Order: sequence, then structure tokens, then C-alpha cells
Amino acid sequence: GNKITELYTGATPSEEMNGTGNLMDFLDEPFPDVGTYEDFHTIDWLREKSRDTDRHRKITTKSKESYWELIKSLLDAWSGWVVMLLIGMLTGTLAGVIDLAVDWMTDLKEGVCLSAFYYSHEQCCWTSNETTFDDRDKCPQWQKWAELMTGHSEGAGAYVLNYFLYVLWALLFSFLAVSLVRVFAPYACGSGIPEIKTILSGFIIRGYLGKWTLLIKTVTLVLAVSSGLSLGKEGPLVHVACCCGNLFCSLFSKYSKNEGKRREVLSAAAAAGVSVAFGAPIGGVLFSLEEVSYYFPLKTLWRSFFAALVAAFTLRAINPFGNSRLVLFYVEYHTPWYMAELVPFILLGVFGGLWGTLFIRGNIAWCRRRKTTLLGKYPVLEVIVITGITAVLAFPNPYTRRSTSELISELFNDCGALESSQLCDYVNNPNMSRPVDDIPDRPAGPGVYSALWQLALALIFKIVITIFTFGMKIPSGLFIPSMAVGAIAGRIVGIAVEQMAYHHHDWIIFKNWCRPGADCVTPGLYAMVGAAACLGGVTRMTVSLVVIMFELTGGLEYIVPLMAAAVTSKWVADAFGKEGIYESHIQLNGYPYLDVRDEFTHRTLATDVMRPRRSEPPLAVLTQDSTTVEDVETLIKDTDYNGFPVVVSRESERLIGFVQRRELTVAIKTARQKQDGVVSSSVVYFTEDNPQVAEACDPQPLKLRRILNLSPFTVTDHTPMETVVDIFRKLGLRQCLVTRSGRLLGIITKKDVLRHMAQMMNQDPESIMFN
Amino acid sequence: GNKITELYTGATPSEEMNGTGNLMDFLDEPFPDVGTYEDFHTIDWLREKSRDTDRHRKITTKSKESYWELIKSLLDAWSGWVVMLLIGMLTGTLAGVIDLAVDWMTDLKEGVCLSAFYYSHEQCCWTSNETTFDDRDKCPQWQKWAELMTGHSEGAGAYVLNYFLYVLWALLFSFLAVSLVRVFAPYACGSGIPEIKTILSGFIIRGYLGKWTLLIKTVTLVLAVSSGLSLGKEGPLVHVACCCGNLFCSLFSKYSKNEGKRREVLSAAAAAGVSVAFGAPIGGVLFSLEEVSYYFPLKTLWRSFFAALVAAFTLRAINPFGNSRLVLFYVEYHTPWYMAELVPFILLGVFGGLWGTLFIRGNIAWCRRRKTTLLGKYPVLEVIVITGITAVLAFPNPYTRRSTSELISELFNDCGALESSQLCDYVNNPNMSRPVDDIPDRPAGPGVYSALWQLALALIFKIVITIFTFGMKIPSGLFIPSMAVGAIAGRIVGIAVEQMAYHHHDWIIFKNWCRPGADCVTPGLYAMVGAAACLGGVTRMTVSLVVIMFELTGGLEYIVPLMAAAVTSKWVADAFGKEGIYESHIQLNGYPYLDVRDEFTHRTLATDVMRPRRSEPPLAVLTQDSTTVEDVETLIKDTDYNGFPVVVSRESERLIGFVQRRELTVAIKTARQKQDGVVSSSVVYFTEDNPQVAEACDPQPLKLRRILNLSPFTVTDHTPMETVVDIFRKLGLRQCLVTRSGRLLGIITKKDVLRHMAQMMNQDPESIMFN
Repeated sequence: GNKITELYTGATPSEEMNGTGNLMDFLDEPFPDVGTYEDFHTIDWLREKSRDTDRHRKITTKSKESYWELIKSLLDAWSGWVVMLLIGMLTGTLAGVIDLAVDWMTDLKEGVCLSAFYYSHEQCCWTSNETTFDDRDKCPQWQKWAELMTGHSEGAGAYVLNYFLYVLWALLFSFLAVSLVRVFAPYACGSGIPEIKTILSGFIIRGYLGKWTLLIKTVTLVLAVSSGLSLGKEGPLVHVACCCGNLFCSLFSKYSKNEGKRREVLSAAAAAGVSVAFGAPIGGVLFSLEEVSYYFPLKTLWRSFFAALVAAFTLRAINPFGNSRLVLFYVEYHTPWYMAELVPFILLGVFGGLWGTLFIRGNIAWCRRRKTTLLGKYPVLEVIVITGITAVLAFPNPYTRRSTSELISELFNDCGALESSQLCDYVNNPNMSRPVDDIPDRPAGPGVYSALWQLALALIFKIVITIFTFGMKIPSGLFIPSMAVGAIAGRIVGIAVEQMAYHHHDWIIFKNWCRPGADCVTPGLYAMVGAAACLGGVTRMTVSLVVIMFELTGGLEYIVPLMAAAVTSKWVADAFGKEGIYESHIQLNGYPYLDVRDEFTHRTLATDVMRPRRSEPPLAVLTQDSTTVEDVETLIKDTDYNGFPVVVSRESERLIGFVQRRELTVAIKTARQKQDGVVSSSVVYFTEDNPQVAEACDPQPLKLRRILNLSPFTVTDHTPMETVVDIFRKLGLRQCLVTRSGRLLGIITKKDVLRHMAQMMNQDPESIMFN
Repeated sequence: GNKITELYTGATPSEEMNGTGNLMDFLDEPFPDVGTYEDFHTIDWLREKSRDTDRHRKITTKSKESYWELIKSLLDAWSGWVVMLLIGMLTGTLAGVIDLAVDWMTDLKEGVCLSAFYYSHEQCCWTSNETTFDDRDKCPQWQKWAELMTGHSEGAGAYVLNYFLYVLWALLFSFLAVSLVRVFAPYACGSGIPEIKTILSGFIIRGYLGKWTLLIKTVTLVLAVSSGLSLGKEGPLVHVACCCGNLFCSLFSKYSKNEGKRREVLSAAAAAGVSVAFGAPIGGVLFSLEEVSYYFPLKTLWRSFFAALVAAFTLRAINPFGNSRLVLFYVEYHTPWYMAELVPFILLGVFGGLWGTLFIRGNIAWCRRRKTTLLGKYPVLEVIVITGITAVLAFPNPYTRRSTSELISELFNDCGALESSQLCDYVNNPNMSRPVDDIPDRPAGPGVYSALWQLALALIFKIVITIFTFGMKIPSGLFIPSMAVGAIAGRIVGIAVEQMAYHHHDWIIFKNWCRPGADCVTPGLYAMVGAAACLGGVTRMTVSLVVIMFELTGGLEYIVPLMAAAVTSKWVADAFGKEGIYESHIQLNGYPYLDVRDEFTHRTLATDVMRPRRSEPPLAVLTQDSTTVEDVETLIKDTDYNGFPVVVSRESERLIGFVQRRELTVAIKTARQKQDGVVSSSVVYFTEDNPQVAEACDPQPLKLRRILNLSPFTVTDHTPMETVVDIFRKLGLRQCLVTRSGRLLGIITKKDVLRHMAQMMNQDPESIMFN
């Protein structure tokens, strides 16, 4: 997003933020707790973990005191599962409601149901008496706008009127969506996955997962998808699920007061989001593991699975698709695939990789332009213009007019005997009795050829428009558009191979597996493989992608083709640039994200990265027994560091601990108010037993040992940066002190590490967000 | 195993080990490389990682020099995928061969094929002309032993002769198996998964994954499974796959010389093993992730998937089951499941949890008895006796006589119209025309009731005998026996519910979903759920279990029942003891395994764990410029530490680095041989610039800065042990130095951490294996 990232890259959260801040202050706690973090800061995972262990220890000790405490401790132990249950149920319900609303509003662009205006086309015609599928599509209760208004359903006038109303509805929906986002919840735009990745890696973005974001994102997602723009609901659903997770975290202090534990819940919520987006619970868990999460212990794996399952089950109970299947695009193919088909599958993989590269480069270039030029000043206008173009170009082509998921569903499907769509217009052998399935390959009829042309146009249209759509200030996911691109390409290739096999039975490659009259090629399978390849090229998922694809389609037998395409597409796309779309957006926005996948292989040492540099003033430190309250206050006022190392003395520079700025401020303030005799010239003691003389002398000393962290994390100045990066990544540190033979030399923060990594990769180091 | 663990718990690898050691010296490298580890030692992950980065850097630098080097660097970059391809192909081939051999030898116990003695019963009768399935079973080419020898196939005499030969073959197979294991590869016994978990966590067990183990385990696995013992091939197949992985590692110095990288390959190999064991590639990857692996980066996830896929694909090409399906127990149910059925499913989960607890406790008690009493001295006799008991008891019952996987397959299957087995002996409504599928619930006939009795007996038999079988000195997995127990229990419950629903249509619980004449209950589904529950109770897998189950059966629709049972069984089993069977065996054998799942919540500090304790002599340290060669040699001789910290001086105790014992020994030895003037009284310098005076004076100083690790890992003495445990776990440290304000106080090794954790849990601290 444009406005937000401007704010992000500023040195401090600006005032503008606070304007809407009061609406979205969900992550904030009511009391100024010493343990919380400030906005746009990174958390210290080790510290959060040890805080949770303390809490747990307290509860265990208390539980032995009374039955009431025992029950409370059991409730606490089970609260994780309860949160998962709640998240699953709410996410499933929201997904169901979104699906129903999208169905209705998408159809509203074309017409309305006379029996009940809130029925979608399909629901409206369920009760119809027409028996065949084709007739049912034209049930009398459902009327197109032109028919309703003028009474004529055919002719140029009706067409133009329908066209006009289609565009009008689209513009109305997208205008509503962008306005709602602008006014109520700027964080509700985009897919949300880059931000969630960053949050899960230990960054605080207050309000990003708040109640307002949840509400507005749900509503605007429906509007955005219904408007017919080239975007999907999958990424935003992950964001919605994470908002639900954050919402339920606030019910339990175990999660609301601990940023580390909260992130475990959010990881599971992300899994639930994908689970309902595709009806793929296992794929959701793997997506969370492979793509989104940062810290994913086994406990989270189980809980994620539980949440994903509950969500999928709730969605099934709501049953928005009208069939009791969990899967979105259920397919059943009647023929196995053959070895020789791996060649077109791998070619589709190459296409997917190229598409991924093109999309990422194009989209990032466009988003950068949006950030730097006047374009970014008019987000509403941009959405309106893109919607207008999309709607105007989409209406004439039947494959782009309908919703993208319907399109994908049709492309995935094999042509059965009863299929009446244009894509299944094959020339039947008149002598052949019609079997229910297992239809042999047939020559393509005119319908197939015209469908091919329309599909080719739709492919170009989708490729271009998706690049401009993703990243606008409305909720937008890219799974469905990517899959659509791949499915179109795959279907075209599939039909080509099928016709080639039919007309050239005698070619060597076909001879072995394709006798005349046999059903050898399934174009729907090619569409599925193409969809996987394109999605893989954009996101660089592999395992979770394949699992999602087969959960989506129920095609367990087709793992090898899917995997071949996914791996090829990943290799091809990786050859042009290591980063997937989410990482690219993270980098574009300068989020402080330490990617676990980046291998740091440079030969630098901790001493090259630590602050202070040679030219800079020495490190701001406190001494254990010779600093006065006034000195400390000056230091706090003059610097904006998060904390200060405490050393034995300025001469020896031997490190004894680290004190947080926030805790120091609170402690001094409290002491000044409540403790008699503490004045500016009081000496601050961090030692255990301060000398007896101090007791006697005036002014009273201030003992602050209890706020001193006696186990700060240290590395030596000779530690290779690859090890330091590894330590920061695996332990989730916020900062690390650098010593040489016990002497304190400097400090390395996560920001320093990120800046150094960016420098080493010759990127703009200033783009890293302020820590 | 018994003998091996005796050796393990000894202070040093004993001589007895070395007797067979030369056969299994696969992990050993030909030249005494300074970088390798000794047997029964733990590796330092950080060090391995930084060694690999160095290697990588060298190759990258070199690749710019010439085309040849560039090609070499590309080959190096692709070697990971090549290794995966090779592992997948070899594992798939071995699994196929094992399957074919087991099929043949299992049938050999009952009879022989006249047309070709190497045909199994099924293969023999494929070519038969009999049309129906029932007749085909009795094809003339296949003759039972009694028929072949006496000419009579019926009657008491024939029965006794068949019985006798069945037991004899079983004894022969198991005797061969145990003898081969004893003589050639003691490491080939057991399931191997506990040891592989330990190896993957960073422990060296030389020869455990060697060529001999691979060969002998493959052969004896066939024998053991064919002997009809209550064991499966799944665990051992993981071991076999890991041996393959280790074998191919030796082809590339990238993997053979780096214990960290080697373990990445082994993780992937474990996935390939499960993939071929069940025909479940995704389940295999998740099993490796959830159950086996320790360090599992995303790169390994992709590669594991690739290896698992290649392995499954190779197996499919070999096609040992004679159908082209990947899945082992393919099922197709015709009815969905109903909400009310969750009650019996959850009850099956409870049963699974109880079975898991019973099995683990019983088996561990028995294995402990084997370790401590005379029983352990006679492994061959034990195997013979158990085989004898198994065969004698198994033959009379048709459900235990056949192979366990056939039994599971029959139990999973729904009763179709053409099914002729005893389990499907329902009373058909004579008026009903026979539809192909979707048969309504019918009353059970006498066959079903007798089958129920036999199944109940088989259940008790399996439960008891499996407890005694697992852990004997032959290859033995427990997936299949566990699943069999669950499948039998599930099928019994399923039939009970089915009959209840048929006879009591009017009960409230059945009223809603089970009208007369409807097909409401599928007993096969109950068997599947029961199998999942029992397997979950024993291993505590959840996600991977569910994925394996549905890959195994193709039943994507039944995730919710499976998950409900798996989670219930885990909860029930966890209530009786947190550890699964693998962790229990790891603990029984005292392997140094730092479980990622154990939460350490005690309030101890690093200072309580570090050596030296208060009563012990001070830490053995070197000084940077005042130790002589003789001092160092004395220190090496007098202690057996892995390395020594180097301090500025004994007075200041400021730490400057850490030096490995092995490198120190080699360096001094080399210096004494090659460097003039280095004598016992030479001073060893670890400083960068040794004083000029040293140059002049005699004897020549020995400069050892290059072997000094300047970035030893340190924590302060006040660091909570929970943080220390976390650091050891996540960074895979071998040791960590403890300091206070820059002064060296002591050292904590992985062994100290494990011992402390065991103490805190009131376990026997001495059972932890010597580091």
C-alpha cells in the first residue's frame, strides 16, 4: 500500500497514524505495562519465552494451593485449544458468509432473482423445474437486467444495456470498497500476507490485526471480489483469519500479554485462513509452515491443524457451494497420465516460472511507481479506472465475464458425455453409443476452436490486468488470478496435445500410449498442472502448493505431474530472482524481515557490523555503581536507544548486564515519586550488595538491580556474521552485545543485521524500516 | 537392542564393538581429518554450518577462475538434487524388491506355485482361467504343502501337515534373520527410528548407517516379515532409506565431510522411506518433519518431497502390488459419515490412547527386563520361542494366519455386492435386486458372527504378542501391528454400530440419519479410524498420521473422523505419559537426545549446571602466552575433555577463545615433527602478535592462533537454564562457556544439559549415554 508504507519508512510513527489510530488500537493494552513493546518495534523472542515460563511456573505453584487455582490452571492449559476452536469457528463462518455474499453480488452484476432478490443465480434456479443443466441455467425466475427493464432478453439493445449495467455495478462495488478502506481501515488493503509474515517474524504493527481491520476487510473483500477485478479472496482471508486470532487472543492474558505466544496463535490462524479459502486444511497448515510462519514449534503444528479442521468443518456446515464437498474445484478424471505427458507438464512449469518472473517484476515496478509518483495520491481514482477497464474488457468475453473461480472450475473439468459447454464441443462419432464416462479422444468441433481464441484473449487480458491490480488499496489476493492464468494456458496446451494425439496416432511419441479410440489426453489435467505452475512461479511454494492443489481437486493420483510442474516453475523463476512476490513486497516496503531462506555467505565479522563504528562516539553505557540519577535521565533524554549495557566501570568495560530503556524510565519515575531521598544526585546501583557507606551517606542511593537483565546475549567481535545472522534468526533476538576478552565493545541490533545484509547484497540499505 | 545398548552405556566404545567395527566403518573417513568427530560424540551444528559456508565461499571464488571450475561449482550446487534422485530411486527399488520377496515368502509358508516356484499365490493364479475371485483363489497351479506331498488337500492329516510346515517355515525364516543380524550387522535390529532420531539430532554412531547394515537389514527384514511375526516393515524401511542416503552422501564431499549437511540428506531419506513404506509421499515428508528430524530447514522440505516422490514413483514403476495405484489399502466408501458417528470414533480414539499406553509401558518393561536379566543373553532363542508361539497360535485363526497387511486391507474394505469373505456374510433381502454399490444395511449372517469371535481372539493375540515382539534382535516395525490392532477393534465396533442401527431404526440417535433400507454405517471406515487411533496412541503423531492415513486409503473425505480419533488418542495417551514409543526407547537406551518437545520449566540457572562444581578442581584452561608445550601435553594426557578454553592469564581469567583437543594434539604433533626448535619448554602463544622478545629467545615459541576459535559461545552465570536449553536446542551447540562480567567461570556441555534435565525430572541421571 502507498500511504502506509510512507508512514513506515518515516523515522517515527507520524501523527497522521494517530488520527485513525484510536479506531485500531486493538493490540494496545489498557495499562502501560512495562513488558510491552512500542509500535514498529521488534520483539525479543527469548525474553517473551522466559516471561511465559515465569507465568507458567507461577500458575503451577498456585495450583497446589486450592481447588479453584487448580481449575484455573487447567483452564489455562486448555486455553490454547479453546482459542483454536473459536478461531476455526469464526473463520469458517466468515468465509461462508463471504462466499455467499460474493456469489450473490457477482450475479447481481448480470441480473436478479425474481422469487427472492437475495438469491444468487444458482440458488434462484435450484427450485426450477427444468431438468437438464442447460435449461436450468435459463430458469424463468432469474432475469437479466435488460429483460427486467425492457422486457427483451435478446438483441443489441439488451446487450448494450446489460453491458452498461455490468460496468456500473462493478464501478459501484469497487468505489464502495476503496472508500471504506480509505476512511475506516487503511490496513485492510492488499493481500496482507507480506505484513503478516513480518508480524509473525516479531514485528509490532499496532492495529494491523484489529477489530476495525477485521470488519472492514471482510466487507470490502466481498465488494472487491464481486466487482470482477482480477483478484482473489485467498490472501485477504488469511488476514481476516489472523484478525480473528488476534481478537480471541485478547480473551486470555496468556496470549494477549505475550507477543511470542500471540504469534503462535496467529500462525495457526493463518492455516485456518487458507483452509477455508480452498477447503484444504492440510494445505493450509503447510502453507502456514512453508510460507508465512517464522517460529513454528510442533505444538503449533497440531493446533494449526485443529484450527484448520474446525474452520473447514464449519464452512462445510454452512455449505456455501451447495454441495457437501469440502473441495472447491472437485474433479474426477477417468484416465491416468502417461510418462510422455511429462514433457508438456514441464513446459507448463517453465511457463509458470516465466509468468512468475514477469508478474513479480511488473508488479513491483508498478508499485514502486505508485510509491514515488503522483499516482499514489489518488488511490480511489486508480481503483475506479482499473475497475472500469477490467469491466469493459471483461464483459464481451464469456471466459472473463464470469467469476474467476467459475472459470477455473470449468477449465479443470474433464468433458463428460453430458457436458454442454463450448469447451466440450467435440465431434462425436455417430456410431458410438454414449458411455457414461471414459469417452475416447475426439476431434474438436467449431465450439472448441472459438473457445481457444477466446481463452487466448482472456489469457493476455488476465496477465496484463493482474499486474496492475495487485497492490491497489482494496483487499486483493493473487492465488485465484495466478491459477486462472495457468489454467487457461494449461487448457490450451492440453487441447493442442489432445488434438495432436488424435490426428497423429502414428507419431512415435503417441504410438505407445495412444491407440485410436482410446481416451489418452485429459485437457483438464493440463489446466490443473498449469494452475499449479503459475501459482508456484509467483509464490515459490512447492510442498504446500501441491498439497493445496490436490486437496482442491481431490486428485491424489496426479502428484507427480503437479510436483514436476511446481519444481520446474520454482527453478525457472528462481533463476531470474530468488524472491517470491511476498518477499518482494516485504522488501519494497522495507519491513524488517529476516528471511530464514536467505543464506548469508559473506566473510564479514561481528566487529564490522556493530555500533559504534570507528568514527562514532562511544557506546552509551551505565556503570554499576557510579552513575547518578541525573546522568541516567540525561542519557535517556539524549538518546533513543532501547536499552543500555551496564559495565563494572568505564575503565575496565567489563559487561555485567543490560537494562531496558522503558524499565529504567518507569523505575526512576516511580522512585522519584515514592522513595524518599532519591534526588538527582543519588547514585544508581546495579550491584547486588552496595557498599555500607552508601547506606549512611546522603543522598539515598537508588538500587536498580531488579530491573537489570543479568544474562544479556553476547558474541565476540571475531564471530563471523553468518553465525550472528543464524543466532538472530533462530533465537529471535532483538539485540546482541559484542565483547572481546570480556570487554564490552559494541552492540548489534536486528536492524543493524538487516542493514548489513542489504548492503552486502548491494541493495539500498536505507529502505530497511526504522526499528 | 540389548548388546548394543550395553556398549553404549559404557564409558568408552568397548573392544567388542571394534570386532564388527571394521565391517561397518562407513561413516569413518579414510584420512584422519581434523574436522571429524569421534564415535559416540555429539556434533556442533554451528561449526558444521560455518565449515560449509567456508567451503561454499571457496567454490564461489574459484568458479570465477575458469570454466572448468564454474562447471564444478554448478555440479556442486546441483549435487543435493542428484543425491535426492539417487536416494529415491534406490529406496523405491529396494522397497519394491522387499515387497515382492515378502509376498512370495509369506505364501511359501502355506504352499508353492507349480508353474514357477518363485511366484506368489496371487501371481500364480493371475494366469488362471477361473473367472470369479473365489475360484481363482483355488487355482490348480497353486498347491498347499499337504496336497503336494500327500495328494490330499482336505482332512485332519493335511491340516496337521500344513500346520507343521507353516510353523517350520516361520521358525526357519526367523532363525535365519536373527542369525544374520547377530553375525553380520548387530545394528540392523529393531525399527531403527529411535537411533535415527538420535543421529539426526547430532550424535555420531559409526556404522549405524553403513553398507553392511543396509544389506543385512534389507535381507533380514524380508525374512522377519515373512516369518509371520507381529511386526511391520515401515520403521526398518526408514532405516534402510537412511542407509541409502548415507551411501550416496559419500559420493559428494559436500555431504560426506560435513556432518550437518549429511543430516539434511538423512532427513530427506527418512521421508523417502515412509513414502515407499505406505505409498504416501506427503505423509512421508510430514513424518520426517514431525517425528524424526531435528533440523529441518525449508530447503530440506523441498528436497525431501522430491526424494519421497521419486521413491514412490520408482515403486509404482516396479508395481509390486500388481495394481498401478500408489496407495496400499485403497478403499472407496459409498456413504458419507454422520455427526452422530463421532461418538464411536472418539471412543475408538480413547481405545487407541489406552492401547498406546499399554503397549509402551509393557514393551518398555519387557525391554528393560531384557537388558537387565539373563534373557538378553539369548537373543536367538528368544526370537525362536516368540516365532514358535506366534506361528502356533496364528495358524488356526484365518485372520492371523495371513499377512497383517492383507488383514488390514480386508478390514478396511467395505462389503461390496460381490464380496465373498466371511466378514461380508450378510443376510440379503431376496426381493432386492443387486445394485453394484450402495447396498443398504442388512442383518448380519452367521459368517459375520463367527468372524467377530475370531477377530476378538485375533485382537487379544495381537495385543499381547506385539508387546513382546517389538525390540527383539530382528528388524521390526510397529506401524502395521498397531494398525492391525486398531483395525480389528474398529471393525468390531463398526459392525456393532451397524447392527444396532439396523435393528433399532427407531432409537433417537439413529432416527435422523438412518432410515430403513438406507446404507448408513460403513464398518470399514471404523476400521480405518481405529487403525489411525492406535497408531497415534503409540507414536503420538497427529498431522503426519492423518495425512498418511488418507494417502494410504485415498479417503480425503474422512479427515474429520480421522483427526478426531487421532487427537483423542493423543490426549488420552499423553495423560498417562508424555512420551511416544520412540522417545521411550531413546530414554531406555540412554541416547543423548535433546527433545524439542520437552518444555524445561525449572528455575535453575547456568551456574547450577556448569562444571566445575564447587567441590571439583578448577576448570582446565590454557593461557594465551604462558603455557609451555609440556604443560599442554600433560593437560591433554590427564584429561579427556573435548577442548580447552584459552584465557588472558590465570589471574584475570578473561576468556579469549576455545581450542579443540583434537586440533591441539595434531598441531603439537606436527610442530614437534616439522618445526625446528619446538621442544617441551617452548611457550605456546595464542595471541596475534607475540612479543618481539620471544622471537629472539630460545626455545622457539609455538604459535597456535590459527587453531584458536575466537568466537566461542558464552552465556552468563545468571542465564536461566530454560534459555540455555533453548540455545542448545536451536543452535545445536556442543558446549557453551559460562562467564560473569567477562571472567570465565565454567563450561556447560550438551551432556551436562541432558543430565540436568533428567535430574529435574527425577529420572536416573546416569542413564544418559556418555558423550
